[in-house]
Amino acid sequence: MYIAMNRFKIIKGEEQAFEDRWAQRDSSLSEVPGFVEFHLLRGPESDDHTLYVSHTVWASEKSMEDWAQSEAFRKAHSQAGKGRQVYLGQPNFEGFNSVLTVKGRE
Amino acid sequence: MYIAMNRFKIIKGEEQAFEDRWAQRDSSLSEVPGFVEFHLLRGPESDDHTLYVSHTVWASEKSMEDWAQSEAFRKAHSQAGKGRQVYLGQPNFEGFNSVLTVKGRE
Repeated sequence: MYIAMNRFKIIKGEEQAFEDRWAQRDSSLSEVPGFVEFHLLRGPESDDHTLYVSHTVWASEKSMEDWAQSEAFRKAHSQAGKGRQVYLGQPNFEGFNSVLTVKGRE
Repeated sequence: MYIAMNRFKIIKGEEQAFEDRWAQRDSSLSEVPGFVEFHLLRGPESDDHTLYVSHTVWASEKSMEDWAQSEAFRKAHSQAGKGRQVYLGQPNFEGFNSVLTVKGRE
């Protein structure tokens, strides 16, 4: 299992605008081979920003790489960076491989 | 859904020792109410460290808080920080609430 996370620092007061952008986005992700689940995560607040993480679970790193070269990816990102400035600095991408798993009973 | 992540910077060359500690740990997590799934994630390498994230999915923030006050939690963390020093600095905890979800077909 592979998890792709992009960390976004969002200017205080712009949180709802940022969340709305994601809600309005048509990524067609659910159709993509190897895609498991996406979450937009809202994290801790600092003095000048709120941390968000886009959190995408893939069957493998390869499945994400294949998607990143697809037309669907290009479309999903065609609006990125447009509109009112809500970001404090650049987003920071981090990719992770699971090396140990514990599953719950639920 | 709530995701608790702890970020660990591990000194280069100590990755296997760090992973072994987690593999040997008896957390009894799978018994805990509200616990969904745990992953130890291996992330990007820098010049002086490899980033790991302990990634725990909970039904809610409340279920994690209840666990953090339990005897099971105390036991699971009784060995934390013992043994050879593998960390570069302190771990950094970040908690996240999901504000948007897309599920895959698989």
